[in-house]
Amino acid sequence: MSVATCFTHFLFAQSAETIKIRQYRQANEHQLISDFVSFLSIPNIVGDSVNIRRNADYIMQAMSVKGIQNIQLLYPTTTKSVPAVYGEINTPGATQTIIFYAHYDGQPVNAAQWAKGLSPFEPKLLTASLDENGTIIDFPTKEKAYDPQWRIYARGASDDKAGVMAILNAYDAIIKTGMKPTVNIKFFFEGEEEAGSDHLFEILQEYKSLLQSNLWVICDGPVHQSGKKQVVFGVRGDAHVSVTVYGSKRPLHSGHYGNWAPNPAMLLSQLLSSMKDKNGKVTIKGFYDDVIPLTMSEKKALKEVPPVDIQMKNELGFTQQEISNMSLAESINLPSLNINGMNSANVGKNASNVIPTIAAAVLDLRLVVGNDWKRQQQKVVAHIKRQGYYVTVQEPTDEERKKYARIAKVNLSSGYNAQKTSMDLPIAKKVIVAVQSTVPDKVVLMPTLGGSLPLFVFEQYLKAKTITIPVANHDNNQHAENENIRLQNLWNGIETMAALMMIK
Amino acid sequence: MSVATCFTHFLFAQSAETIKIRQYRQANEHQLISDFVSFLSIPNIVGDSVNIRRNADYIMQAMSVKGIQNIQLLYPTTTKSVPAVYGEINTPGATQTIIFYAHYDGQPVNAAQWAKGLSPFEPKLLTASLDENGTIIDFPTKEKAYDPQWRIYARGASDDKAGVMAILNAYDAIIKTGMKPTVNIKFFFEGEEEAGSDHLFEILQEYKSLLQSNLWVICDGPVHQSGKKQVVFGVRGDAHVSVTVYGSKRPLHSGHYGNWAPNPAMLLSQLLSSMKDKNGKVTIKGFYDDVIPLTMSEKKALKEVPPVDIQMKNELGFTQQEISNMSLAESINLPSLNINGMNSANVGKNASNVIPTIAAAVLDLRLVVGNDWKRQQQKVVAHIKRQGYYVTVQEPTDEERKKYARIAKVNLSSGYNAQKTSMDLPIAKKVIVAVQSTVPDKVVLMPTLGGSLPLFVFEQYLKAKTITIPVANHDNNQHAENENIRLQNLWNGIETMAALMMIK
Repeated sequence: MSVATCFTHFLFAQSAETIKIRQYRQANEHQLISDFVSFLSIPNIVGDSVNIRRNADYIMQAMSVKGIQNIQLLYPTTTKSVPAVYGEINTPGATQTIIFYAHYDGQPVNAAQWAKGLSPFEPKLLTASLDENGTIIDFPTKEKAYDPQWRIYARGASDDKAGVMAILNAYDAIIKTGMKPTVNIKFFFEGEEEAGSDHLFEILQEYKSLLQSNLWVICDGPVHQSGKKQVVFGVRGDAHVSVTVYGSKRPLHSGHYGNWAPNPAMLLSQLLSSMKDKNGKVTIKGFYDDVIPLTMSEKKALKEVPPVDIQMKNELGFTQQEISNMSLAESINLPSLNINGMNSANVGKNASNVIPTIAAAVLDLRLVVGNDWKRQQQKVVAHIKRQGYYVTVQEPTDEERKKYARIAKVNLSSGYNAQKTSMDLPIAKKVIVAVQSTVPDKVVLMPTLGGSLPLFVFEQYLKAKTITIPVANHDNNQHAENENIRLQNLWNGIETMAALMMIK
Repeated sequence: MSVATCFTHFLFAQSAETIKIRQYRQANEHQLISDFVSFLSIPNIVGDSVNIRRNADYIMQAMSVKGIQNIQLLYPTTTKSVPAVYGEINTPGATQTIIFYAHYDGQPVNAAQWAKGLSPFEPKLLTASLDENGTIIDFPTKEKAYDPQWRIYARGASDDKAGVMAILNAYDAIIKTGMKPTVNIKFFFEGEEEAGSDHLFEILQEYKSLLQSNLWVICDGPVHQSGKKQVVFGVRGDAHVSVTVYGSKRPLHSGHYGNWAPNPAMLLSQLLSSMKDKNGKVTIKGFYDDVIPLTMSEKKALKEVPPVDIQMKNELGFTQQEISNMSLAESINLPSLNINGMNSANVGKNASNVIPTIAAAVLDLRLVVGNDWKRQQQKVVAHIKRQGYYVTVQEPTDEERKKYARIAKVNLSSGYNAQKTSMDLPIAKKVIVAVQSTVPDKVVLMPTLGGSLPLFVFEQYLKAKTITIPVANHDNNQHAENENIRLQNLWNGIETMAALMMIK
């Protein structure tokens, strides 16, 4: 019986270094939070180049204060709008180099959808999560301690300014406690991750020699739902398909034309429902082809993942997962199709008696190793055609409207493939030991994250190895309204990153 | 072969009275438009009681200027927020009384959806419809004439402030041209039609003796799509069903939980698509039961309706009507089910990589004579249950979320039944003659309007007869963004209403 499945609760020893880092953090929490709140107050919606630059400047300033060297912006070759922030520490005698990656851009926000009192770029402190009936409180004065269960709500609090914060303060804590890194450190903070990292490869190409390393530590995503720290050896790929279907050119009165004029909301419903069967399996032809099966060591690691399905269903308020009889850990090892959003005219108080003119949906395709993102998108396009649709990439012309009974505008945005690193590499084993040295509970080893990061580019352009080590609580509302970070996760993140900088 | 289907274009004579009214209108167009623009500038969203009252005050003032008597607000017994505006003209020697009905409230608006340069309550003059590439122009000075093809864009321009405007100015034109009504006239302008006229019956009960008449002329809805004037003998009933389905309690990252957590947008798509077959027929059990077949005279009138399907498909930009092989005129004589709006999270630039928490749709049910609106709603509820849903009327509790795999919140708003008046009544025949006296083209006789008006209440509470005589152009974007009225329709409306006030 392995340790992970043993019912006796085996506790690992925490390192002396970890204890020092913890004590330093405990003595400096007010300053750490104050800095983090300033950082979160700078809007960081991906694509908002002016504010993206303000975030980059903030990070450079923070690096400078901490004594990090060779600080600079790394620009892609074709645009100045999405620089990565770079810095480095050369450790005398070190033979290995680790690059610490996080991203400082955030997902788009719809401020109206945030809970009362919350606002994406005005960070607020809550006594617990909203689901646990947390309430907004003032940030405490220096006399009063922070409760590690408290949370900060803001866009980017978890995804992924928490990563930037943990990495920079881990280095700072090592120095301030009189310790030293064991490796050369490079810092790399991306500004375009939430838009699919379209220009990352240009940066990696342009600065290839600067960015040589033995490993990229990717600090992004959530820790395991069991609350345990996790080391993740891969990510899913991602690609999107936007679909718009058409009815009448102008909105029609639903009485005068009801059930004569085609209703695009109904057409879209029929189209979307044709993509999955009642058991949640995708019915698009060939959707699960190309998948490379898990290795033996990955299967073994999966078996040791603490089961969380029942806990998660309770927490999330549903009883029936989408694919019958498949666990969460199993599901994320398959390609997926999700509706991110769907809209046609209005609901609620703005609803009116119309037949809408269009209905639109955004589909998110997650990919596993073996899938090609363009091929996966084309499977969806082919499916839409098989449902009788004429597919175009722009608004249909009058001629097209006369010619085709069913018209779908299908836009494919750029995506990327999945990536995995072998769990059996020597550096992978060292990473596991380092992370384990910070916590008494067994660290979870995951073959892949359900989420996506453009890790393939590191492999493709730098031949680099990547391992993902997340910081955020799993219930962080990442990518949605009410994003938040639990303070204990921030504190744990600093300890984890510090241990990796002092890898044995 | 009847006149209507004869290929020789037979022209009817226009009455001397119509010519006088026309000349008066031509001499006063600038004042008429100026008044109408002032009226349209008062926001009239149904339920906005402050502005609804401002509209009522405006109408009372306009009636007073025109010498209309006994002007008053008629209040429902249970609320002061939705008064009808009343006034009357007693004609010496008249033996018949006609009540002219229009409504001054409008549908909700989403100003962001209006075309560039347009705004719901800032009326704009356009050279043609937006579909015909009309452009915004200034309202002309007195030296320059109005082109009757020009259009005014504003909420209520067609539905139904055009009715109020036509009725009041028809009476004014009769007096100003030295003519006299042949009937006693009562004016009745409702302020809650777009919310389903929930309190109309209270007004009719409360003011039963004041509202006695031989006929209600309902001035609402569009003229026939062929552009010809129409007399309409019935309306469809209307009822709504709002449906919300649930996934996770909080938004989830579509990577970390994709295809494990249920996706409410997919669930809603599956639910909605289960309601119609591929031929557009509603598959809800018993949906077409209860329908009373058309009479012989209604069937004859339907046959004489000018065919408009090909013209309308060209104009609206689609080739395939919803119910295969059924014409528009036939379709509106059946009960219908339409999706008015549908939403789940965001599409377009606000889309993000989430699994939405809810998905919602508003369904519009149109009813024909024989249908009962509550029974029709219950057929939809029963269908949702048959799809495996637990149905509730409020947000599901944690206990319900634990108990049921599929949960739908279903809210039923109040509706009303269809209504029809016999085409063979003596007063019906007089109405047809009067409307025909204003135009050379054969007037279209329709058994029912596709749209809905709460005409059943007149029958139920007053035993009154109703005939609907619309004014607006058919392509008026009623109930949607970019609502508009073509000036010629406004001018025609004044002539029609004047002829009815001088019925022979």
